[in-house]
Amino acid sequence: MTLITSSKNDLIKTLRTLTRKKNREEQQRYLLEGVHLVREALNAQQPITMILATEDFQVAAWLPNDVPTYWLKPEVAHTLSATVTTQGIFAVLPLPEAKLPQTFTGSWLLLDGVQDPGNIGTMVRTADAAGLTGVVLGEGSADLFSAKVLRSMQGSHFHIPIYQGDLADWVTELKAAQVPVYGSELNPAAVDFHQIPAQPNFALIMGNEGNGMQAELLAQTDQNLYIPIQGRAESLNVAIAAGILLFQLKN
Amino acid sequence: MTLITSSKNDLIKTLRTLTRKKNREEQQRYLLEGVHLVREALNAQQPITMILATEDFQVAAWLPNDVPTYWLKPEVAHTLSATVTTQGIFAVLPLPEAKLPQTFTGSWLLLDGVQDPGNIGTMVRTADAAGLTGVVLGEGSADLFSAKVLRSMQGSHFHIPIYQGDLADWVTELKAAQVPVYGSELNPAAVDFHQIPAQPNFALIMGNEGNGMQAELLAQTDQNLYIPIQGRAESLNVAIAAGILLFQLKN
Repeated sequence: MTLITSSKNDLIKTLRTLTRKKNREEQQRYLLEGVHLVREALNAQQPITMILATEDFQVAAWLPNDVPTYWLKPEVAHTLSATVTTQGIFAVLPLPEAKLPQTFTGSWLLLDGVQDPGNIGTMVRTADAAGLTGVVLGEGSADLFSAKVLRSMQGSHFHIPIYQGDLADWVTELKAAQVPVYGSELNPAAVDFHQIPAQPNFALIMGNEGNGMQAELLAQTDQNLYIPIQGRAESLNVAIAAGILLFQLKN
Repeated sequence: MTLITSSKNDLIKTLRTLTRKKNREEQQRYLLEGVHLVREALNAQQPITMILATEDFQVAAWLPNDVPTYWLKPEVAHTLSATVTTQGIFAVLPLPEAKLPQTFTGSWLLLDGVQDPGNIGTMVRTADAAGLTGVVLGEGSADLFSAKVLRSMQGSHFHIPIYQGDLADWVTELKAAQVPVYGSELNPAAVDFHQIPAQPNFALIMGNEGNGMQAELLAQTDQNLYIPIQGRAESLNVAIAAGILLFQLKN
């Protein structure tokens, strides 16, 4: 049993660098924090390479025997944590390989330059709950493996495939596969989302919080949907709009 | 023209205490931060008592002439801010008076112990966008006038009345006014939300992120709604669920 007592320990110092995307990519791994997420990773039989936990987790019967485990003093756990009050448990996982899907039919959520980590995570969780085929993050969207995105995903990235890529290429493939592609921007040609029936195959594109979708992408959509605003709010939060649209479109 | 150059200035020190609910209530005022929110307050003709801004705002033609305005050095603005990179503009507003509505008919969102400030703010914004009559915060919900809630409301608290009170009393009044009260918890008696038609009068109760609604309140509802989960997510984020339900229920 290894007990780490200093935050200057080499392993801890290296793992702390995983807060940056650049370092996650160089090391091809990411850090997951918290009881719920670590248990989700175990339940989903993810290839966890390492667990780190404060000593009070030594009594946790659900911790696996076959994964290298390091015990941490609370002050060491604190320096590894992205939260103010850490639960004191972490797992290290390899970044998943980026593969293309075998088929483009199905139901898809495409994120075009979404910036807020909480919005991205919540939309992945919502896409999971709606039973979608997959989620695609376009270039310019916040990174999937930051602590904040991981926290809002609540483990949904273990349930639903997530791709990163050029959305224009994706839309071309989706259209070639006869999948209707819906944009979500209020313009004169947009239709009230209530008019679109639930369907097995569709792609929905959600845009950036401030600027919406890229014009080039908007030009490629089959139809553009809007949610009628009755009150005086200027707009809906992007994740809320995605939730309303997905639970209308998905059958 | 008053320029504040020190963060130890008495006014700045007092305004900094407004981060705490206790102090907001004692002083009966709150601090609003950011260009968008201050402009929303001006557009909504709110009784702003004071504006504080860095000197670069002296050229902003939209700033009112009839509101006492203090200019701040950037380092002073920084100490007043709840964000890492402040836009450097603030307004002080009186806490609105808590009144009861004249009638309980209409469409209502009731929040039962919702904890996350972002969730509360987003739900108020969504209720505004859906054109609801009002929002009610039960005891145990996070406070409405914290910086985080204000940020996610995006000014919707200027558009839609928000009440704070005992939800059991509210439900009693709503039922006396023949307003159907819907809970949002998955239990054997719950019905798929798709089965409930849009209607002019209803109240929807959303519960705490982890524990859901209080049992006593759940027992008082007319019907309990659920959103069918197709994927492997355990649940939806509470604000997403509220968005889906409100845009189904509201006609």
